[in-house]
Amino acid sequence: MFRFATIALLFLAAIPFLQSQSSPVPQSSAAGEESALIQDLVYANRILYDQGVIDAFGHVSVRDEKNPAQFFLSRSMAPGLVTTKDILEYDLEGSPIDPRGRAVYLERFIHAAIYRARPDVKAVVHSHSPSLIAFSVTGTRLRPVYHLSSFLGAGTPIFDIRDAAGMTDMLIRDNHLGDALAKVLGNKPVALMRGHGSVVVGDSIPQAVYRIIYTDINARLQMDAARLGAITFLSPEEAAKSAAMLDAQVPRAWELWKSRIGKIE
Amino acid sequence: MFRFATIALLFLAAIPFLQSQSSPVPQSSAAGEESALIQDLVYANRILYDQGVIDAFGHVSVRDEKNPAQFFLSRSMAPGLVTTKDILEYDLEGSPIDPRGRAVYLERFIHAAIYRARPDVKAVVHSHSPSLIAFSVTGTRLRPVYHLSSFLGAGTPIFDIRDAAGMTDMLIRDNHLGDALAKVLGNKPVALMRGHGSVVVGDSIPQAVYRIIYTDINARLQMDAARLGAITFLSPEEAAKSAAMLDAQVPRAWELWKSRIGKIE
Amino acid sequence: MFRFATIALLFLAAIPFLQSQSSPVPQSSAAGEESALIQDLVYANRILYDQGVIDAFGHVSVRDEKNPAQFFLSRSMAPGLVTTKDILEYDLEGSPIDPRGRAVYLERFIHAAIYRARPDVKAVVHSHSPSLIAFSVTGTRLRPVYHLSSFLGAGTPIFDIRDAAGMTDMLIRDNHLGDALAKVLGNKPVALMRGHGSVVVGDSIPQAVYRIIYTDINARLQMDAARLGAITFLSPEEAAKSAAMLDAQVPRAWELWKSRIGKIE
Amino acid sequence: MFRFATIALLFLAAIPFLQSQSSPVPQSSAAGEESALIQDLVYANRILYDQGVIDAFGHVSVRDEKNPAQFFLSRSMAPGLVTTKDILEYDLEGSPIDPRGRAVYLERFIHAAIYRARPDVKAVVHSHSPSLIAFSVTGTRLRPVYHLSSFLGAGTPIFDIRDAAGMTDMLIRDNHLGDALAKVLGNKPVALMRGHGSVVVGDSIPQAVYRIIYTDINARLQMDAARLGAITFLSPEEAAKSAAMLDAQVPRAWELWKSRIGKIE
Repeated sequence: MFRFATIALLFLAAIPFLQSQSSPVPQSSAAGEESALIQDLVYANRILYDQGVIDAFGHVSVRDEKNPAQFFLSRSMAPGLVTTKDILEYDLEGSPIDPRGRAVYLERFIHAAIYRARPDVKAVVHSHSPSLIAFSVTGTRLRPVYHLSSFLGAGTPIFDIRDAAGMTDMLIRDNHLGDALAKVLGNKPVALMRGHGSVVVGDSIPQAVYRIIYTDINARLQMDAARLGAITFLSPEEAAKSAAMLDAQVPRAWELWKSRIGKIE
Repeated sequence: MFRFATIALLFLAAIPFLQSQSSPVPQSSAAGEESALIQDLVYANRILYDQGVIDAFGHVSVRDEKNPAQFFLSRSMAPGLVTTKDILEYDLEGSPIDPRGRAVYLERFIHAAIYRARPDVKAVVHSHSPSLIAFSVTGTRLRPVYHLSSFLGAGTPIFDIRDAAGMTDMLIRDNHLGDALAKVLGNKPVALMRGHGSVVVGDSIPQAVYRIIYTDINARLQMDAARLGAITFLSPEEAAKSAAMLDAQVPRAWELWKSRIGKIE
Repeated sequence: MFRFATIALLFLAAIPFLQSQSSPVPQSSAAGEESALIQDLVYANRILYDQGVIDAFGHVSVRDEKNPAQFFLSRSMAPGLVTTKDILEYDLEGSPIDPRGRAVYLERFIHAAIYRARPDVKAVVHSHSPSLIAFSVTGTRLRPVYHLSSFLGAGTPIFDIRDAAGMTDMLIRDNHLGDALAKVLGNKPVALMRGHGSVVVGDSIPQAVYRIIYTDINARLQMDAARLGAITFLSPEEAAKSAAMLDAQVPRAWELWKSRIGKIE
Repeated sequence: MFRFATIALLFLAAIPFLQSQSSPVPQSSAAGEESALIQDLVYANRILYDQGVIDAFGHVSVRDEKNPAQFFLSRSMAPGLVTTKDILEYDLEGSPIDPRGRAVYLERFIHAAIYRARPDVKAVVHSHSPSLIAFSVTGTRLRPVYHLSSFLGAGTPIFDIRDAAGMTDMLIRDNHLGDALAKVLGNKPVALMRGHGSVVVGDSIPQAVYRIIYTDINARLQMDAARLGAITFLSPEEAAKSAAMLDAQVPRAWELWKSRIGKIE
């Protein structure tokens, strides 16, 4: 037994080393930069599912760093299952550059329209996170309850698809509806969509992911607090100062969220 | 150590391959179609438990594709533990074709009665999901808060067993009670059962599973929203258009839910 | 690689067999019956933690089948970590028969007093499950919202330690306080303890475990429903008929809960 | 196969033994005491994340046992990922003794100021646990609902940074703000911070960890109970007696929480 145990000990000791060597995503040095962006996009899909912001539906995109007139978005599938092979590229009209025979999201126009309207935006998350639905259908204004969601101080407009197109199936199915949504979003980080969900934007994938997660948390905090009494929200000045401070904190959260996902393919 | 590490590396690299080869459910080509339906039924049992819609109780059935006068349903046990070997077949009176000495669910008449009354129904879920109980005992009308539960726009009647049989132990123990429940359900996708739970039907296992999961989510959304203010529900026209769109989205959720379960036996 | 993969395949194939052979609780046929009871008690400890009814505190006991004047209860420790070696035996005054140098629960008198007063009781759970605290401190009557908690129809009295002993540290530290609690419990299955928790009793370990889990669920259901509107509770007759039916359903839940724990030591 | 299975059995049997031998934190007997304190600090970081009190943000510190004018605190990172290598030492002005080139928490002055003001305090937790935010922004007084949070009877003051510094980014960025917070905390175990979070102190790491976890639970209990009716809180005398009893119970919870984390590095 001693000899076998020795071998087994060596084996166990080797596991971490072996795991770090057996990375399933080898990167050529040439395509390294784009690979890194696409890997972050895959992580964003998996993180949003892991954090409960997205279920089988919703999507997240990132603008192409080398060609700002294009963006990356998964083929039509559950975000929690996305791998690097599922990422497609689209132009700013929402047409896939090379669909490779794959189904595309009906609502890709959400992303296309926002990238058209907002050159500052590098990443977009569309989701149906439950805590935001209540605000979208009651018109209650979502406001920053604490510093970690201080970016909400910039405003959280509500888009109602009836204003743009009357009675619909609620989906942003074309560029006309995408433009109407982008117009309501304006220069804000977040817009709610009545009876549907939300769009959240950022100047990077981690920032957009951070914002939807803390928008969702803030919504629950605000619902809890509203039942206890009148709420003292962050003042506009506190919110602005705090939001400026927040960006430097995003990587701390991003590293934690990535660590929960582990290796991706 | 180097040589051993190499062997270990090969071993680790082989694991995914080995796993896919060791599938515990080999299927003969002859019984393939029925096998696929029964496997989906087992997945439905496990998914409903994994998604928190069902606990130790509740059940899900599917109509036999080859003989619409019969349906498949597990023997009496917790859905979260069901395997293919636990599936029995029943006739439309709720009698097991061949019980193989196994206990059957007391409330199998829920399924039998609905299959009798609704030729369009291929799958039935009966559960006690907590969020629906509150609606069943207060008479609050459950209505579609967002597009993912738009099928609720067709109506969500409440069955009260007192109307059919006075004071009981609350169970649907015979065909008379099953018929009374089926009558309240009518042509709707969902009926609540006062102080008990719900029945949800679909034209396939994935659709019925999707519907109970999103009925449950909608109930929580509606409870949250009701505390914030007056709710703007989907209009009847929005609900109808959105429900028509939804069916094409079901497979995306089904694949995600199955992936969480992994291999079944 | 082929040869090594073959060996690895054999190894993987052997794992289930090896696991079932390496059971850590071999039972001699002589002590089998008592062993089974103690194993069920260990499962009860672990299940109550797994189901969120108990955190680091709370405890569960079972009356000795062979000597009804004694009962089994863990030494003082977190229930989620209890193993068979941690079980001690006590007499009906709450004194350990052989403490083997181990710390005992301060509140063992809860169990002793109830076994003294209630010959029908075979198992007792004391816990601080959060959902019951709200009822204990507001005096809101906990009533059966649905059939799975119909046993609550027998009544859910509230024990206030002030009535028995004035200002205390809230613990049932002696037989006098134990008797006062047992008197409030009377012939009921459940008593709440103001600002503290609850006691739940059963004629077996699975029944007592079932009752605290569904008492806890019912409390949350009732809180949710109360916010929606006036509640139609089970009528006394419905509750009585349904409670009589429930006992046969307990094993289905017990098997599921045990399966989540796996092997115990 | 038999021979291989035998070897495999030996291998499996050896795993627990091997794991306990391959502890990644070998301790020299000289540095043993300090090592133990730092390991407890790492456990505290991981436990607070595991128990949902801390997300990517918040921090926990411990006073140096050998030099009470210094304290240990992680470098700036998510607490859920902290290892022994990430722990730095600070003086009571909040300056790192040897930062080793690593980023430090902006709000380390929370810890420094409290250790300056409170010689009795050995450990400090700063967090943004969601359930406490609602109390901090509505001014609702957090009071002990049950015995496990009886230490709250000593008082739960609310710090509003506007009183000390007007419009800010909400962070405790310097010793002036730290002093203002420590003054509001006074001799209490807990202070809420409006629109931000809380600080909780203890005479040991386990006590401080216990207190924030049960402060958080109490906040949820109080919110639930407040919706049901008028609450009977623990009386001041009950709270004092119960709090005195609680300290002996902390190790039971600490062992459970540690067991969920497993080995640390």
